[in-house]
Formats: sequence, C-alpha cells, structure tokens
Amino acid sequence: MPSSHDHRLWVIEALTMQLALPSALTLTQRLYRSLRDWIQEGRLGAGMALPSSRRLARELGLGRNTVLGAIDRLIAEGFLVSRPGAGVFVAEWRPEALARATSASGAATPSLSARGLRILDFSATLSARHMAFAPGVPALDRLPRERWQRLLRRHQQRAPTEWFDYPKQGGVPALREALCDYLRLSRSVRCRPEQILITQGAQQGFELIARLLADAGDCVWLEEPGYGGAQSCFASAGLTLQPVAVDEEGMDIDTLPASTPAPRLIYVTPSHQYPRGVTMTLPRRMALLERARREGAWIVEDDYDSEFRYASAPIASLQGLIPSAPVIYVGTFSKVLYPGLRLGYLVLPEALVEPFRRANARLHREGQYAVQAALADFIGEGHFVRHVARMRECYRERQARLRQALAPAIAAGLVLSSGHAGMHLVAHLESHALESELVAHARATSILLSPLSRYYLEGPGEPGLVLGYACATEAEIDLAGRWLGENWLARERPSRTRKGRA
Amino acid sequence: MPSSHDHRLWVIEALTMQLALPSALTLTQRLYRSLRDWIQEGRLGAGMALPSSRRLARELGLGRNTVLGAIDRLIAEGFLVSRPGAGVFVAEWRPEALARATSASGAATPSLSARGLRILDFSATLSARHMAFAPGVPALDRLPRERWQRLLRRHQQRAPTEWFDYPKQGGVPALREALCDYLRLSRSVRCRPEQILITQGAQQGFELIARLLADAGDCVWLEEPGYGGAQSCFASAGLTLQPVAVDEEGMDIDTLPASTPAPRLIYVTPSHQYPRGVTMTLPRRMALLERARREGAWIVEDDYDSEFRYASAPIASLQGLIPSAPVIYVGTFSKVLYPGLRLGYLVLPEALVEPFRRANARLHREGQYAVQAALADFIGEGHFVRHVARMRECYRERQARLRQALAPAIAAGLVLSSGHAGMHLVAHLESHALESELVAHARATSILLSPLSRYYLEGPGEPGLVLGYACATEAEIDLAGRWLGENWLARERPSRTRKGRA
Repeated sequence: MPSSHDHRLWVIEALTMQLALPSALTLTQRLYRSLRDWIQEGRLGAGMALPSSRRLARELGLGRNTVLGAIDRLIAEGFLVSRPGAGVFVAEWRPEALARATSASGAATPSLSARGLRILDFSATLSARHMAFAPGVPALDRLPRERWQRLLRRHQQRAPTEWFDYPKQGGVPALREALCDYLRLSRSVRCRPEQILITQGAQQGFELIARLLADAGDCVWLEEPGYGGAQSCFASAGLTLQPVAVDEEGMDIDTLPASTPAPRLIYVTPSHQYPRGVTMTLPRRMALLERARREGAWIVEDDYDSEFRYASAPIASLQGLIPSAPVIYVGTFSKVLYPGLRLGYLVLPEALVEPFRRANARLHREGQYAVQAALADFIGEGHFVRHVARMRECYRERQARLRQALAPAIAAGLVLSSGHAGMHLVAHLESHALESELVAHARATSILLSPLSRYYLEGPGEPGLVLGYACATEAEIDLAGRWLGENWLARERPSRTRKGRA
Repeated sequence: MPSSHDHRLWVIEALTMQLALPSALTLTQRLYRSLRDWIQEGRLGAGMALPSSRRLARELGLGRNTVLGAIDRLIAEGFLVSRPGAGVFVAEWRPEALARATSASGAATPSLSARGLRILDFSATLSARHMAFAPGVPALDRLPRERWQRLLRRHQQRAPTEWFDYPKQGGVPALREALCDYLRLSRSVRCRPEQILITQGAQQGFELIARLLADAGDCVWLEEPGYGGAQSCFASAGLTLQPVAVDEEGMDIDTLPASTPAPRLIYVTPSHQYPRGVTMTLPRRMALLERARREGAWIVEDDYDSEFRYASAPIASLQGLIPSAPVIYVGTFSKVLYPGLRLGYLVLPEALVEPFRRANARLHREGQYAVQAALADFIGEGHFVRHVARMRECYRERQARLRQALAPAIAAGLVLSSGHAGMHLVAHLESHALESELVAHARATSILLSPLSRYYLEGPGEPGLVLGYACATEAEIDLAGRWLGENWLARERPSRTRKGRA
C-alpha cells in the first residue's frame, strides 16, 4: 500500500490526467466526481490524507474556490472528513464488505412477492400492437388527430394554475358534465355529474374499487372466460377470484354451488361479454341485481366497448336498470378514442362519491386536466358521437372483411361468435392442440392470435381464438384472415403431413 | 288496474304528449326512452300488451320504421317480448321488489373495506392548493409555460401511431435516455436508460414496489415522521408499517428493538428527510445498506426534492453509493415541474427491470407518450436544468422571505428547521394544544398550516408546523408569515385573554 505521501502524489497525477480529458462538466464537478469515484472504488482508502486544497489548486492550475467547491461537497456528503489543523481525510466507510457481499451472493437479489409473481402470470395474455388480430385496440389510423390536437392546444394555452397543482375535484367539471349527458342519453346510466370520477384509465378504477370495497381474502366473482386486466387487478389486490360460467345469456350465477363464498364484488361486462361477445339478458340482469343486493355485494359493470353495436341500438346499462342499483359503472376512453390517452371514469353511487374521490387523490393523484378539458369539448361539441358513429361503420366493415376472408373456412364449419357488437370475434376451435399450433404458427408469420383458453382462470378452458379486427387495416385483415382460414382448413391433413405426423 | 285495452290507449296518449315536447333526441330515441321509463317505473306492468307498431305509427303520425326501431331495441334488451301472432308484451320482471329493498334498507349500502377506511384515515393530511403554506407544491406561477406548450405541440403533431396504442416500453426511450444522463450527472445515480421505468407519478412507483416486492402482512420500515403518500400507499397494499425514529443524522435503525420484524422494504428520503429536512449521514447510509443486504430487503429511496439545495451542491443518491446497491430510486416531476403533469420514474436494479415493466403495463398501462417526449426535449435541450436553477433561486428567496416575516418570532425563540434544502421549513412548537389552535385559527384566515404531528404514524408525535413556501408568492408569504409570527408571539397572553381563559 502506498504511503500517505505517495498517495497524495498519485491523487494529483490522476486528477491532472482526468482534467486533461474533454468534458461537459465544470472543473468543480469533475474534481468532485473523480475523487468520489476513487473513494467509492476503494482506490482512496479510509483515513488517507488528501493534498491540501491550496496545493491541489496550485498543482492543477485551478482557482482555490474551484477545488474547495468539490472538497466541501465531499465533506458535506461524508466521503471526506476535515480535521482542523491536520487536513482533509477520506472518511471511514467500508464499501468493500458490501460489494463483496453483493458479488458473492449474486442470486441474493430479494425475490418477487407471491402476488408479484401472480401479476406476472397474468401478464402473458397482454396484447401488444395495432396489428391483426390484437384485441381491444381501436382503429388508430382513423383518429381525428388534427381536431384533437387543436382542442389540446386550446386548453394547454388556457389552463388555469390549479390544473398544474394537485387537483382533487374528481376530474375537470366540464368533462364530468359532458360525460354525464352522454351516459344518460346513450347508455341509460342514472347519474349526476358529481357521481363521476375521472381516472387514469379503467384499470385505476378497478384498483380503487378493489381496495376501497374489499379486503384481502374477500371474494370477487368474475365471468369465465373474462377480462385479464380485471383478473390481474383483483388478484394483485389480494382478492379470491371465483370464476362464474358464461353462456349465451351472459354470466350465470345459478351454476355456482351453494357453498360458494359470498362475493364482495361481482365483475361483469353485461353489454358485450369479454371475450365471448354475448349480451346479458334481462332476467339474468335482474337476478344478478337481486343477488348482489341480498349478499351486500357491489356489481362492477365494465362497459368497455358497448358503443360499437351493429345489429341494434346500444344495450342500456345495468346501472340504470333500477334506481339505486348496487352498481359501479366503469368506462374508458381507450376503446372509443385511444389507449395511450389514459382516461377512464367511474360512475359511483352517491354514498361512495366522497370516499372514492378522496382515496383517488390520495393514492393516485389527479392530473392531465388540460387533456380532460380537451375531451370535454370533444364530447360537448359533438365530435365524440360523430367519431363513435364513424368507428361503428369502420368496425362493421372490418368485421365483414374478416368474415369474407374466412368465408371458405366458415363454409367448411369454422364457428365464429355472433359479432353483433364490439371490436373482436371469437373463432371456436376443436382442440387445444390446434389452438396452440395456430397461435405459434401465426406468431412466426407476425400475426397475433390470442388463445381463448388464456381468458379462463380455471381448467383448460374452451379452445378458440380472439380475433381483434378493429385496429387492423383492410389489407391486413385480408391477408391475415386468409392466412388463418387456410391454416384452419389445412389443420387435419397437409399441416400434419408436412410435419410427417400423418 | 286498467284493462289491457285501456292501457293501449293510455300508451298512445302518453306518447303523443311526450312527442309534443321539444327534444334533441330522434323520434325513435324518444319512443324508446319513454316506453322504457314507464316499464322501469312500473306504469307498464309485466304482461301488458303494447299497441301494434302499425297502430302506433298511424296514431302518432310516425313512420313504421321509427316505431320498430324503438320496439326492437326494447325487445333486444328484454323489456318487451314478442309473441308471434299475439303481439308485443311487457316482459316479466320485478323491479318493485328490488326498489323496495333499496328504500327499506337505506343503510344497506355495503360498507367500505377495512383498508379503504385506512386510506381515508390518511387522506386527512393531504395538502390542497397553491397557497401559503401548502407543502410539496412548487411555484406554479413560475412555470415556463410557453416553452412547455411549444414542446407539447411539437410532439402531439409528430406522434407516431404506436404512442396511441397500449405502449409498453417502460416510457418513451428518449425520455429515459435524457433522464439517465441527468440522474448520473446530478444525482450520482448508477444506471443505464433501460433501468428507468416511467410511471404516472411517484405514487404509482410505490404501488408497483409494494405489490411486486412485498406480500400482505410483510413489514415496511418508514421514517417517523414521514411522507403520508408513502404511508397510505404501503398501508393500502396491506403491509405492516414499522416507524423508525429520525434524528439529525436521518433515520436511525439502531433505535429499533431487536425483536422488530425483518423488513421487506425500507422507505427513506435520505437527501432531504420529509418532513424534517435533515440529510442522512454517510455512516447511517452505509449502515442502512448493510442492514438491507443482510435482511434481504429493498431500500426505496424517495428523492423528491433534492434538486433544491441552497447551502451546498446536491447530495449524491444512496442508490449510487455502492455498486449494485439494493435500492430502488424513486423520482418525480411533480416538484421540479408540476404535480398535474403526473410523471415520475423508478430506477430499477437490472433483475427487476423486466418484471416491473411487465407488471406496470399490466396493472396501470402506459400512456401520455407525447407528454413524455416533450419532457425528453425539455431535459435534452437544457431547459430542465435551467428551470431547476431558477426555481432554486426562487425558493431560496421565498424561504428567506418567510424567515424575515417570522423574524420577530424567531428572535423570541421560535425554532425553525435548517432549511438547507427543499420547499418547506418546519417550525417547532411547545405543545399539541398550540399546534391545533394555530392550525384551526389559520384555516379561518385561509392560511394552510400542516401540523407536524400528523406526519407521525404512532404516538402524539412532535408538535410543529410544516410550512411550504415554494408555491406562495412573496406577498402571500409576507402576509401569512407575519400572521403566523404574531399569533405565535401572542400564544400565551392575548389570545387566551381574548377567550377569557386567563
């Protein structure tokens, strides 16, 4: 080990070399960083003396204040200690032991929590890109971008100061009013603007519901198959997930054994079941409301894409069916506008308005008020309903295009869901083996096929494919649809022959 | 009860009256809503026959398709049933029973969860507005709004389509790169851009950490007093909160009894303890790192306002102190820019990058990519460091202004925290009674005083006031500061005399 004197020389030489290198930093910053790095690396050991600031300034050709700036900061941070009369020394600290511990136990990284692993389990089903056949992604090529930008600009310029603060009004009032009018008219939701809480997407709404209304271990009933975003959110909130079978009339709570634990929450997509696409019938709706009331449970109505209904007018909401229904209505702008917008909302029963607003401000904070105000105008000036109408036409056409591309397969027996509504179709398959084979094969061809069985919480689930057609262009639909049809038709014979298995 | 025939007449009369009223709706919509309302209200009871669509069209003077549009929708929704050959009837459903149940058990509203109540407990301490002396709110009057708007416009216009989708890159790459450079240089954080995950504010970062790294019941150590936002987030994630005393050297884990449960997470604000304002010394930092390593715990370093340091250069981060420190560094733009922006970030150890990115995309979704890109330019073009420098000067002056306004009280013994850094000062008080009295009295004068004792998880806590000076204008500071000084000086005598208690 070099003597203290040698060390001082080394420091001066090393600093001289460092300062000769080009850098964007100030001289003080460079001195500071070099010394700190050497202390952290152990090249300057605990207790070693530094050359005096006067000497450093002279030998390095720097002003004394430049040197003192660096040394004072290192003293303030505890890397150096000043002993009056004796000089400045490297402080006592032992990074070596820690660094050794780190490298020795390379795998000593604390592991993820059990619920963390569970979230990651769910994340495999996450759809990725605006391509055929990503489900849940709208036609991003058809966004009224210029108009939207103009509205954004308007409100970014006008934004009052409180929008930059930590606002806690539950959202821009103008947006809640415009939304209230829209929901009452189009979705038969019973509400006043005050009952609407603007969130950063539907997921944030689920988070609030799961935590404000249920404790860890409480039971939530969910449609089976169902929406992965809700499944993972409720799972990560520590709830027990109870799948409930879905048939042609929607979720059927009568299939549950009598021993099923009472729910605290019941999650449903009654307008357009995700992913199967069925609409919950009125008797089922009434039975569900009655059951929720009896059990003291809240129904979480996720009305994610009911705007896009092709065969008839939009179905009225469950929330509005009876007065004071035990329903929290969850909406999102991800489907009718675009997901990257990150805006959604809850329609809350009166009694929950204040607790939810406070908890949201506390847990998630509010923000993006200029964007919210732009959206209020987008709705209020009628662009929103026009955009919805245009998209309905666009999706109707894209769905027809997909059916056409699949026509030979359909003629040969491929069964598709009704497609009365929404942004995706379900193609039913004969086996899980075929499902896996098609999904893997498609991936290699840059076609995204989502296996229906992945939407199930339990069991093997029904084999099938969830085909999002909303975000794909007509040309992509033609290509990917034909590919799928041909591969489905070839499922028994040539494909296996090619693999030498027949 | 009217006969079926009477009823048909009543329907026609009522509809005629309805249609005579002005409305923005289409005729079909108005027919639909009137009939549905009457069914829901029970005025049209189950089993009742509707006039034929032909008759309705004739008597109301409407096209037959207009009438059928409404009736078909009501059939689709299950409010009406069509019996071929017999006509259309009101469906069997019993809203009355439900409605009665609702009104009878007015308080039958399912109650909030235990953790929900806990979140609301915490929410009382939430600061509200840009006024003297709201803590944690920056100088919103000094935002470079024009420049910021120009950058926003630039990126809103240029936004590539994938920004509108469900992006899942962990944030705009340009922002992660700009931020990485900044953090390495200014905060001595050791990282690559890939280790940065952009979140919708620091709170979302805490959420991810709490859930991915800890299970319900796991223990988190937190500074006492400490940051309410972290407390409520960890509490709502089901963690056990273990307060750890803070003294002049920062959090002191040696004060914990040996029987304290091992932590899974340790939350600290080492650069500038919130709210007390002390800086954690190097020996304490090393001890904390060693302890975390030994216990297999993660340190959550919240570096919320360390940019604003007046006496010396910013203190280096705990994360960068040693290689591979078991630290997750949490940052936010709420303090250096504005809270309504809703952008923050995590700097993650390599092993956690992928799980966190996936879980974030799953649980919270990503978005606001145009805003992120604007922020990348704001940093990359040097506006950010200039803004920070300007704000540092502004806050230094505002703090001096507050001290000046309080000078008579200080001369008489009022003790303030050091104020070497940050956006608030702590005024220590002699008693909780005085704390409550000043807080309540100030509220009546539209001055926001945050009681220091509220920042404690346990016990009565130390009495005092947290005085945010960053967001208040000079004039507001003068006024509110003088008010506070005078009321503090008058604490023994006149105020009590006025109340007739002396």
